[in-house]
Amino acid sequence: MNIDMIDAAATRIKGHARETPLLSSPFLDEVAGRRVLVKAECLQHTGSFKYRGARAALSALPKGATGVLACSSGNHAQGVALAARELGLAAVILMPSDAPRVKLENTAALGAEVVTYDRATTDRDVLAADMARARGLELIHPFDNPQVIAGQGSVGLEIAAQAHMAPADVLVCCGGGGLTAGIALALEARAPGLRVRPVEPEGFDDTAQSLAAGRIVKNPARAGLCDAILTPAPGKLTFPILHRLCGPGLVVSDAQVLAAMALAQDRLKLVLEPGGAVALAAALFRPDAVQGDTVIAVATGGNVDRDIFIRALHHGVSDAHRPA
Amino acid sequence: MNIDMIDAAATRIKGHARETPLLSSPFLDEVAGRRVLVKAECLQHTGSFKYRGARAALSALPKGATGVLACSSGNHAQGVALAARELGLAAVILMPSDAPRVKLENTAALGAEVVTYDRATTDRDVLAADMARARGLELIHPFDNPQVIAGQGSVGLEIAAQAHMAPADVLVCCGGGGLTAGIALALEARAPGLRVRPVEPEGFDDTAQSLAAGRIVKNPARAGLCDAILTPAPGKLTFPILHRLCGPGLVVSDAQVLAAMALAQDRLKLVLEPGGAVALAAALFRPDAVQGDTVIAVATGGNVDRDIFIRALHHGVSDAHRPA
Repeated sequence: MNIDMIDAAATRIKGHARETPLLSSPFLDEVAGRRVLVKAECLQHTGSFKYRGARAALSALPKGATGVLACSSGNHAQGVALAARELGLAAVILMPSDAPRVKLENTAALGAEVVTYDRATTDRDVLAADMARARGLELIHPFDNPQVIAGQGSVGLEIAAQAHMAPADVLVCCGGGGLTAGIALALEARAPGLRVRPVEPEGFDDTAQSLAAGRIVKNPARAGLCDAILTPAPGKLTFPILHRLCGPGLVVSDAQVLAAMALAQDRLKLVLEPGGAVALAAALFRPDAVQGDTVIAVATGGNVDRDIFIRALHHGVSDAHRPA
Repeated sequence: MNIDMIDAAATRIKGHARETPLLSSPFLDEVAGRRVLVKAECLQHTGSFKYRGARAALSALPKGATGVLACSSGNHAQGVALAARELGLAAVILMPSDAPRVKLENTAALGAEVVTYDRATTDRDVLAADMARARGLELIHPFDNPQVIAGQGSVGLEIAAQAHMAPADVLVCCGGGGLTAGIALALEARAPGLRVRPVEPEGFDDTAQSLAAGRIVKNPARAGLCDAILTPAPGKLTFPILHRLCGPGLVVSDAQVLAAMALAQDRLKLVLEPGGAVALAAALFRPDAVQGDTVIAVATGGNVDRDIFIRALHHGVSDAHRPA
């Protein structure tokens, strides 16, 4: 992995992925006690950065590839489905049968063949490998794929071009670490004063723990508010990059996540999903753990459960001002 | 009013006002039966296009001006307050005492002096003129001010630069007509194939009626869902421009507005206020009244009442498919 791969991916997805704006509000600055710049990646096609990595990976497939297979409960699924449709490739998406219905429906509506499996009884990775082999499909891993990481890195190139600033922390919502690693590689080359820091929900801080331990540490797999980023461990490809380039991980509470969603709605007119709001939550409610006069938070959307979104809107910011 | 004034206003506000993106979603295209491009002006500072006109007008004041006065129940108030603070001018905002508390608070938080009056007993225009004279303030009308119209016209310059397309309708949320007139003047010069059409809520279609009659027709002043755009009549400055340049007005129902808000939240991750969603509502639910393979809808935000926003989220799209 290097900056040339990220530049090449950015060139391939140019004119397809949106360049998303860096937004701010004096009201958010006041909450955080410093200037907060929000990279509004929820405005990307399909509502999340996953489209970038998907389009980058699918456009790098060898000639003759006819279709792809991806495992995802939502955002990667839709990114791959849309990119495949645009590039004339078949897409099969393996989704857990208990995934939110709206994510299953959206993925199918984008032209993918959705195959569901039972999380409790099926080894997803074995099923995926078997099916990919049997049907001649290229498996597109959601984060441990160099071209996916390179595509997500285009977010970092945009940040470097948009933010002309003193050294600062760049907070990134972190599941398997594809987005975090991609941004870190891009900023290492183009804005080395910006330090990338992964942000995770309380109880699911495998990346923070892995960075502290210097080796991959796993979380038990279980459900939580921030479903989009509850990967049990950083990836084999992503962890060495995170370990080499990223600052200590940050952890936020569910109350802080809901308050960040409410503030993004009110002050930025943006709809974030819980997993896409953790970085903004850290920027707003963990001021002592962040360095610099300005902080950048990457925010993403995806499919937001309506009841959770309404719960967030009713959530008071005051509830979030306790240590995570 | 001419294109040179709009170019000059755009130059003055460049680097201050945000260039807002043109967004789309295949799911919205499916509802509308054609491609829908949404000019996301809710991402402007203070959440609405009003900041553009305010910054343009305040930056054109004669040297020696020390302060401004504006009458507004919300969005113009906040646009003027922010622009005044940035330019080192005092701002007094006259707001009705029954304006939403959040709009009063936000305006004051942006540094303005908020003066409230009783809508039932006070002639606002007389009060404003008296106070402006007594305190030496420049009155900034929300739409019948050439520099305000020129500032809003910068939205049209951006649309002309962003949308390279065949002749199409550009649907604009219309209150007093400052935004609509500004965009129409900009597109007349820079993208004459794009026809501007004002959109209003059912029962408040003074502009549509005025365009049909060829003279200013008034609505009775009363409250409604789309409070931001319930001006009783188009302006003396704006109407001649609308009459010369704009296509027939469109009218949407409250059900269509709420459904458009829900779809913007779900498909674009954008928070719109009711008055800022009427153009998108027309694009989605009045397909027979719109021409062309593509339609552009300008969407704005402002302060969204939480209960109305939640009502919109619960609102079914199916309810919107009846004639307005």
